[in-house]
Amino acid sequence: MARVHLYVAAACAVVFALAAPSLAGDPDMLQDICVADKASPIKINGFPCKANVTADDFFFAGLKNPGNTNNPNGAVVTAANVDTFAGVNTLGVSMARIDYAVGGQNPPHTHPRATEIIFVLQGTLQVGFITTANKLFTKTITVGEVFVFPRGLVHFQQNRGHYPAAVIAAFNSQLQGTQAIAATLFGAAPPVPTDVLAKAFRISNGEVDAIKAKF
Amino acid sequence: MARVHLYVAAACAVVFALAAPSLAGDPDMLQDICVADKASPIKINGFPCKANVTADDFFFAGLKNPGNTNNPNGAVVTAANVDTFAGVNTLGVSMARIDYAVGGQNPPHTHPRATEIIFVLQGTLQVGFITTANKLFTKTITVGEVFVFPRGLVHFQQNRGHYPAAVIAAFNSQLQGTQAIAATLFGAAPPVPTDVLAKAFRISNGEVDAIKAKF
Amino acid sequence: MARVHLYVAAACAVVFALAAPSLAGDPDMLQDICVADKASPIKINGFPCKANVTADDFFFAGLKNPGNTNNPNGAVVTAANVDTFAGVNTLGVSMARIDYAVGGQNPPHTHPRATEIIFVLQGTLQVGFITTANKLFTKTITVGEVFVFPRGLVHFQQNRGHYPAAVIAAFNSQLQGTQAIAATLFGAAPPVPTDVLAKAFRISNGEVDAIKAKF
Amino acid sequence: MARVHLYVAAACAVVFALAAPSLAGDPDMLQDICVADKASPIKINGFPCKANVTADDFFFAGLKNPGNTNNPNGAVVTAANVDTFAGVNTLGVSMARIDYAVGGQNPPHTHPRATEIIFVLQGTLQVGFITTANKLFTKTITVGEVFVFPRGLVHFQQNRGHYPAAVIAAFNSQLQGTQAIAATLFGAAPPVPTDVLAKAFRISNGEVDAIKAKF
Amino acid sequence: MARVHLYVAAACAVVFALAAPSLAGDPDMLQDICVADKASPIKINGFPCKANVTADDFFFAGLKNPGNTNNPNGAVVTAANVDTFAGVNTLGVSMARIDYAVGGQNPPHTHPRATEIIFVLQGTLQVGFITTANKLFTKTITVGEVFVFPRGLVHFQQNRGHYPAAVIAAFNSQLQGTQAIAATLFGAAPPVPTDVLAKAFRISNGEVDAIKAKF
Amino acid sequence: MARVHLYVAAACAVVFALAAPSLAGDPDMLQDICVADKASPIKINGFPCKANVTADDFFFAGLKNPGNTNNPNGAVVTAANVDTFAGVNTLGVSMARIDYAVGGQNPPHTHPRATEIIFVLQGTLQVGFITTANKLFTKTITVGEVFVFPRGLVHFQQNRGHYPAAVIAAFNSQLQGTQAIAATLFGAAPPVPTDVLAKAFRISNGEVDAIKAKF
Repeated sequence: MARVHLYVAAACAVVFALAAPSLAGDPDMLQDICVADKASPIKINGFPCKANVTADDFFFAGLKNPGNTNNPNGAVVTAANVDTFAGVNTLGVSMARIDYAVGGQNPPHTHPRATEIIFVLQGTLQVGFITTANKLFTKTITVGEVFVFPRGLVHFQQNRGHYPAAVIAAFNSQLQGTQAIAATLFGAAPPVPTDVLAKAFRISNGEVDAIKAKF
Repeated sequence: MARVHLYVAAACAVVFALAAPSLAGDPDMLQDICVADKASPIKINGFPCKANVTADDFFFAGLKNPGNTNNPNGAVVTAANVDTFAGVNTLGVSMARIDYAVGGQNPPHTHPRATEIIFVLQGTLQVGFITTANKLFTKTITVGEVFVFPRGLVHFQQNRGHYPAAVIAAFNSQLQGTQAIAATLFGAAPPVPTDVLAKAFRISNGEVDAIKAKF
Repeated sequence: MARVHLYVAAACAVVFALAAPSLAGDPDMLQDICVADKASPIKINGFPCKANVTADDFFFAGLKNPGNTNNPNGAVVTAANVDTFAGVNTLGVSMARIDYAVGGQNPPHTHPRATEIIFVLQGTLQVGFITTANKLFTKTITVGEVFVFPRGLVHFQQNRGHYPAAVIAAFNSQLQGTQAIAATLFGAAPPVPTDVLAKAFRISNGEVDAIKAKF
Repeated sequence: MARVHLYVAAACAVVFALAAPSLAGDPDMLQDICVADKASPIKINGFPCKANVTADDFFFAGLKNPGNTNNPNGAVVTAANVDTFAGVNTLGVSMARIDYAVGGQNPPHTHPRATEIIFVLQGTLQVGFITTANKLFTKTITVGEVFVFPRGLVHFQQNRGHYPAAVIAAFNSQLQGTQAIAATLFGAAPPVPTDVLAKAFRISNGEVDAIKAKF
Repeated sequence: MARVHLYVAAACAVVFALAAPSLAGDPDMLQDICVADKASPIKINGFPCKANVTADDFFFAGLKNPGNTNNPNGAVVTAANVDTFAGVNTLGVSMARIDYAVGGQNPPHTHPRATEIIFVLQGTLQVGFITTANKLFTKTITVGEVFVFPRGLVHFQQNRGHYPAAVIAAFNSQLQGTQAIAATLFGAAPPVPTDVLAKAFRISNGEVDAIKAKF
Repeated sequence: MARVHLYVAAACAVVFALAAPSLAGDPDMLQDICVADKASPIKINGFPCKANVTADDFFFAGLKNPGNTNNPNGAVVTAANVDTFAGVNTLGVSMARIDYAVGGQNPPHTHPRATEIIFVLQGTLQVGFITTANKLFTKTITVGEVFVFPRGLVHFQQNRGHYPAAVIAAFNSQLQGTQAIAATLFGAAPPVPTDVLAKAFRISNGEVDAIKAKF
């Protein structure tokens, strides 16, 4: 079971990579099923198919329990995509469970290859996405309610309730990909040049370095 | 909020139509968003876009409560696809909530245009799909567990527990489409010719008519 | 040359698998040609490309003669898809020839990955498909006439003439896939649970077992 | 019923337009069916959907009889694509019947949007396509045999037998498009500049004009 | 001719919208050409087709001259996509010219719907993109050199030379879409809540408000 | 750096093959990046992914200098597609530089898998494409101007100025493919039968052979 922390320290980069790409508009399947063969030495667009398939290949138990939200974001994403759930290979879908401590946040991020639709399991969240015209669509949603985030657009969820919250998220890709904006820019390796970030955010080099130090 | 009964009497045909098509591999969006304009007189592949959009267009509350399972199948599908949730137009995703009474069943059916992935909210279900080689993949799953049904293949869920069950289903299409096999064949209007069904199922015309009478 | 009997006994499951998946909306080719390398140990979405290609790879003689219709359905499908005709790999098309004895039937079935269009070579057939709204579109067609069956929807053809009939079918996939509904449900291995089918078709367990015994 | 002559005189340009575009990889359908509404004033990618649909919309009788091959090519294409057969709109397939007099030819041409697969109804044809590496794949085929021409590549068929020939062609597009090379280059309106053609074919301006005079 | 300033003040939001979405994997065209009819009252996925088309519809002169880089970013994007160049509708491509003053920057941004490939017309630029694993790929490139930025990933260009620089950018979408990260987050309307940004960037509310004041 | 001569002698066939296929509507990527592994023994649709990737994989310097136009066409195409630039694998884009001597010509040709958009670097060119209705759209364009050629349609560029000319071309495919019509028909190996070409172009066998002798 993969569980992905929403904050990114240098040590977490690989974990984020695992949680990463899923996409809207995966190519169509050319046979009924093609369970990912993770052991194959061949690397292709997606994954080769493994030889012996059972019902367990289409089953995933890793979203059953809440993840550990004891981290700077106060939130954690647990992924059920092709990196953790081989059966979705070529099928064009994946899922994730997101848990939020009180005040916890799934920070502004994009999925380069998928639209996301969420169903609230518990709690109260402010959610929103921003269009390429820099228009914010935001709403506070609660248990049993649904919200959709269009492919590739920056979006976020923030726990606005007095208790922990959780959602089930679905994606129209086997590997949606995630770029948590702040971690991507201030926590990349090698680092994004400080002057590039300073000019982009209209802050000083020192202020950039102070943010970098936190990621 | 649309709620679709899993059994199909003649009177329910239109309701089923609402629950119907959603698909894997929807064409990509050509702009950020295009909320379906249901009032448009223009009928196209998908829907035209409405002019004034708010955050409420990307929000859907219709999956909050269990549906009424008091019907022959003992189960009910409540859809959050483009027929009920205009905001998913062009976004390539949809959701549904399925509730099952004790012993209730989402009977063998196909989605012509989508893969389905489910997350169990409560209860214990036997689930399965059958490949084009007539091989059955089946498993009994419970709360918090996930199973995936490849696009276009016949699949089913049956409540095998002592309490009501419920799942959240996600699809990689704005309108997945549903063909409940028995209702499709024995409840179509106009009816499928009795001798066609008799030969296909290797039963007598009288047996076919007896089944037809129940749909 | 592959020839696929339209009835499915346990012994025929593998043959059906060969006849199976072909699809609408195959991913686009990334080079001119990629003839399937059936001997490759690598299994991917579709097939790897073989090294030495000749004009014979794009040629198929297996539809020349009528198939043997001496079976319970009184009909037989002979496939020219990627399982039998390696040259169509990545090209997004396939063909089949269907022969029907007097009274013979291509029973209600779906193609999970392709639309089908047929041209009648000889005879008189009642054809039809059923939408997800359970609406039947049916017509009787004869030599030289064309009918189209949309992707993923249940459809059938039945010989209504006094002589054998035959059609050429084309699909917009290299491997269309076929689920013959009755065989899929009553002839699967392992078997679909009897109580699931009894509830779905609203018949007794005994009636289900009697049908199963015929497949 | 549309019937398209394989030679192009200026007066035939519109007819060719009708026979023209069909493509591999049409966008997926977003509902079961969407029969083209040819009367709609709205022009979109493909066609809007008409309101009232019957089984006749999915039926086409125009390929029943041989076309008139009394023209310079000695061959004629009769199309069953969205321009003549509204029911294939959004379904990603089309068909055509091609008749050839003795010595008749479907001259070198491309389909910008579709792969083509043919089944020989009668006669003996030399068929071939040329790759982007200028390699010719050619074969002589006869009744009941199948050949496939990859999307976008130049290909031809020539009657090499002592009797008329005919094929059924299928395409993975609702409107495959056809560019008959010689007519496209030497019969375009307005004309392609003579010096462009002279340099391309390495002939004199006079020779170009002589060819132009025949189209 | 549209010219889009790379900095976003509130007053520029509409201009950015124009420069915005273009995408990798646009749906395939269903006819040869479909020039966007901007005057149509019908809003669909993409644009309806206009009736009378000339060669000028496929021509665009707006990239001929450098744009005005006198703005906070010291850079300007001039777009040749479907918002400014109607002829690319349904064709799946677009272009842009980007000019950079000395020290100017095309700040970190994403294209939700397209891969970008650039050719340097003049000057010396540091370019880079960051993967979903937070790995930076960066290089300094100069006149006549080419670099590619995968769809949906955050990327940037910074003039590192002593003279103005310019590139031609191409996209595999008619409307690539642009989200300039800093402007999207700190310049959205309505504003993204300050506490969401503070937690995401691990800075104080006051620091967030100071950045917001600059956009 | 690959440089492809626009004329095709038998000896150049392999070079043309390298320059060849690129396409509109490549299948979507299933991960961030997948740089082509040209050394892999596995041949698939596209290329497998290599293991160790650096920023140089996304960089290409081969378009920096003009190509040698000393050939019968007086023009040369230098390609930056997956055959020469491994980094574009799965990304759906490519580029090329085309240089034209005075009077030089990129002769009538098609790209079976891509739309092309060009930006003029220097000089004055007559450009044009022909639709499937045999309608020519042509225009004379100069430095800084843009023109688009729809996927699969025959098009050309001819230097109409008094100096050499050059353009940057972009394609929405990793491997657009090129069929230079005259070379394809008159220079194929094995040769297209003379009588096929004579009938198609309405010239004598002797005239066909005279043209063949020049390719």
